[in-house]
Amino acid sequence: MASEHEIRAMRRALDLARDRGSCLPNPTVGCVLLDVHGEEISAGTTVPGGAHAEVEALTAAGERARGATAVVTLEPCAHHGNTGPCVEALVGAGVARVVVAETDPNPVAAGGVEALRRAGLEVETGILGDEVEPLNRAWRFAVTRGRPFVTWKYAATLDGLSAAPDGSSQWITGPEARRDVQVFRAQCDAIVAGTGAVLADDPRLTVRGTDDLPVARERQPLRVVVGETTIPSYYRVFDRVAPTLQVPSRDPAAVLSTLVERDIRHVWLEGGPRLAGAFWNAGLIDRVIGYIAPSMLGSGRAALEGEATTLADLRPIDITDLTRIGPDIRIIGTPGPAPRETYA
Amino acid sequence: MASEHEIRAMRRALDLARDRGSCLPNPTVGCVLLDVHGEEISAGTTVPGGAHAEVEALTAAGERARGATAVVTLEPCAHHGNTGPCVEALVGAGVARVVVAETDPNPVAAGGVEALRRAGLEVETGILGDEVEPLNRAWRFAVTRGRPFVTWKYAATLDGLSAAPDGSSQWITGPEARRDVQVFRAQCDAIVAGTGAVLADDPRLTVRGTDDLPVARERQPLRVVVGETTIPSYYRVFDRVAPTLQVPSRDPAAVLSTLVERDIRHVWLEGGPRLAGAFWNAGLIDRVIGYIAPSMLGSGRAALEGEATTLADLRPIDITDLTRIGPDIRIIGTPGPAPRETYA
Repeated sequence: MASEHEIRAMRRALDLARDRGSCLPNPTVGCVLLDVHGEEISAGTTVPGGAHAEVEALTAAGERARGATAVVTLEPCAHHGNTGPCVEALVGAGVARVVVAETDPNPVAAGGVEALRRAGLEVETGILGDEVEPLNRAWRFAVTRGRPFVTWKYAATLDGLSAAPDGSSQWITGPEARRDVQVFRAQCDAIVAGTGAVLADDPRLTVRGTDDLPVARERQPLRVVVGETTIPSYYRVFDRVAPTLQVPSRDPAAVLSTLVERDIRHVWLEGGPRLAGAFWNAGLIDRVIGYIAPSMLGSGRAALEGEATTLADLRPIDITDLTRIGPDIRIIGTPGPAPRETYA
Repeated sequence: MASEHEIRAMRRALDLARDRGSCLPNPTVGCVLLDVHGEEISAGTTVPGGAHAEVEALTAAGERARGATAVVTLEPCAHHGNTGPCVEALVGAGVARVVVAETDPNPVAAGGVEALRRAGLEVETGILGDEVEPLNRAWRFAVTRGRPFVTWKYAATLDGLSAAPDGSSQWITGPEARRDVQVFRAQCDAIVAGTGAVLADDPRLTVRGTDDLPVARERQPLRVVVGETTIPSYYRVFDRVAPTLQVPSRDPAAVLSTLVERDIRHVWLEGGPRLAGAFWNAGLIDRVIGYIAPSMLGSGRAALEGEATTLADLRPIDITDLTRIGPDIRIIGTPGPAPRETYA
């Protein structure tokens, strides 16, 4: 059983990890070291591309780590990746007890709990597991499913339109929604758009205006342009702010396969409706974030161009969040199985 | 100044009126009589097509009305309509004081407050006026603007579609939303649909399943079919449950003009997208009630078929309510001016 001190420390480790932001392609992890009285000695979070949370906390604690309890949001790794395994570091520092929220689904890195126990440490798992779970949902999905988690973002009017008949689409939603998009983009490691949308809107596809989010400063997501059409080099997607990859295929599975090979765990898909439709039809959208503007157009381009014939093709979305963002409405949901899967 | 007793009585008169439901084409009114100690003697509400609230309350009070205070949501009428003027009844019963929430915008019926004062009664107006205002909003609109208030109801997927490409559209929203529609329909006095929607879906266009709403039992709204196409007599819209009027015109202003002549104050517009588009383009939609299903189709028929060319044609909707109704999302809003009005 975890003590009250440990539960409080886990919540703090989670808060620290959340503040840290995305460390993709690695998981975001927080760690707090407690002394025998349950008082905090030190804390740390994974550094993107750098040290793991446990090592950060152990380094800060120095000799005081001896006999301590390490409270950590994810099972410490037992493998040699960019850094040595955290298990060795914890054992070497003389930590006596380890409290873990989630176990590691990555077959390469897993086994940490077992290794700690073999080394004689007391280990508890599953502490605040439900609270910690959303932190690395996309990463966990990618590791277990072998493809990136796909979040599709769209902005539309109440009548479902994302552009006027003449193609004009900036701006349907307000500044608050556009800022909110940046916060979500910063949690992904690739921003994907089709060549059509890039040519039409010349988007930057970068994270910006989020100085309070560490990830935005340290690393921009990979920009991915999907399609065979050549984009002139003066388009903003080719500026020096972030790396850009063009994938000359419209097959969503092929695109995701290319991206997973490049260690992409979380894809942010936006623009345009045809590309979104291709992912939709293939059942390859795992989360939908829709910004609905309080307005109507009456005619224009739909946010989604999919394939439906009859009402049986209706695909449910389990709405997990419904919030006003400035004047707009934000809906976050998980699509149910595509009809072809339901009726197979 | 109204006393605390009177304010409490006004809130009760409002509650009674709300429970009464629509009395269209007349306003819905509640009245509470208080004795000199502020205790309730009796109460009444307008009966659809029958006695006014004041008369109901006075009849119930009998001799005890002498010296009483009448607390009434709307200015008592001073004209002879179906019933004698309430002013005469109040004066005749010996009521000493009258507390009113809203004055009557109807030039035929107004003047009640003045007449009461001339008869020597003490009168206070504007008590809880803001709370009472929504009760008869549509009626007030029609009386002052000379045309019915138009509520447009639609149901659509998150991607703004109301029917699949093959025309199938039943049911996009859940039973809770459909029940909610009945509650709103019961507050209108005409339900309007186009011939296309009637032929496609054979809707009943009646209020049903609302036994707890008095108006639904006492009087069905007029069913109005808009368009020139002949609807065969075996269609449900021609059953005996409610009267039906076909208006052989697609001009929204002409339709409303026909309806206002028949004492229609509040139009409930639904189905199909072309008729809604015509009202939308003409700036003749005063309130939008949208039921958005947590699902997407990807292709199909839009909820609204209007006319827009560029993003400047975007028309804002001031959202006054956003609620989950079962699995669906209900949005209630007021459209801003049509672009043509804005840029005129």
